[in-house]
Formats: sequence, structure tokens, C-alpha cells
Amino acid sequence: MYYLISYDITEDRFRTKAAKLLQGYGRRVQKSVFECPNLTERQLLKIQDELDRLIDHETDSVRFYRQCKGCLAQFELVGAGQEPEMAASGYY
Amino acid sequence: MYYLISYDITEDRFRTKAAKLLQGYGRRVQKSVFECPNLTERQLLKIQDELDRLIDHETDSVRFYRQCKGCLAQFELVGAGQEPEMAASGYY
Repeated sequence: MYYLISYDITEDRFRTKAAKLLQGYGRRVQKSVFECPNLTERQLLKIQDELDRLIDHETDSVRFYRQCKGCLAQFELVGAGQEPEMAASGYY
Repeated sequence: MYYLISYDITEDRFRTKAAKLLQGYGRRVQKSVFECPNLTERQLLKIQDELDRLIDHETDSVRFYRQCKGCLAQFELVGAGQEPEMAASGYY
């Protein structure tokens, strides 16, 4: 499964930990946005569990957006950066 | 069309302008992430054109991710915030 994960985390050390965690599953495409092209259900649950224990539930949030093949094909970019990793998504 | 729009914009005044622009088309769900549930092709092009003229193409980026009904249904949230506006998406 291809997931886009974006977060707002107030505390620097927790935000750094979240980024480190996500680095192991995908690619940072913006400061607080990661693309994880090939997550298993189990990996998704593991990430959610770890972030759930890490963040302040009053102020912080982590959003998980699924990206199917059709949606990925309609991705658009303005400015710097890379397109989504289609090949790594396993859809192609 | 339901679009998720995330941005990294260095200059405060341009970032503020971008947020104001996107506010007219959708809802801010995180500091630099907006959900625009019902964009027409024309509106999407207009937004891209305005942001294209606003940002610094060396340092800044705006990412546009399509969200179909199936992907939206697999959205997940950890922490604070709201689920996507399904009703406003016109998919339901």
C-alpha cells in the first residue's frame, strides 16, 4: 500500500523521532510529509502505534492518506522536489 | 475532485498568501496541509498557476495529491484533528 503521511508535531525531539521512524519506511518529500510507497498492513499498524505513543494528542496530529494507482497518476507538483516513486509502489 | 495540497514555502509572507488562497477552496487540516474536497479542473489549474507565480522554485514546493473515494475511505488519523470531509467531497 502506498501511503502519504503528514504530521504536525510541536516538540522538536518528538518531531525528530517521528521523522527518523518514517525514514525507515519511505522518503521525506517535504518537511513534515513522507511518502511510504509499499507498506504492509502490519507496518502501517506498527507506525501508527509508535506515533500514537510518541505525540501529544492535544496538540499534535499525524494524517495517513492512502494513494492508489489512479490517484498517484494524478499527482501534480509546483516548484522543487520529486514526483512520487511509482516504481517503488509495486503498482507498475 | 478531492485534492490534498501540502506545501513547504520558506518566506512567511508567501506562505501566508498561499494559505489565504487555499482557504478559499478548502480546509486547513495541518499547518501546511489543506484538503480541497470539490475542485473543478479549472479551479485546480487556477490554484497551480497562482502558486507557481508566488513561490521560489529553488526552495519551495507545493504537492497536489488526488484522493478518490476508495483512498479517502482508508484515511487514518493519530492525534488531534478532523477526518476528511466526506460529505463535501461529492462522492457520497
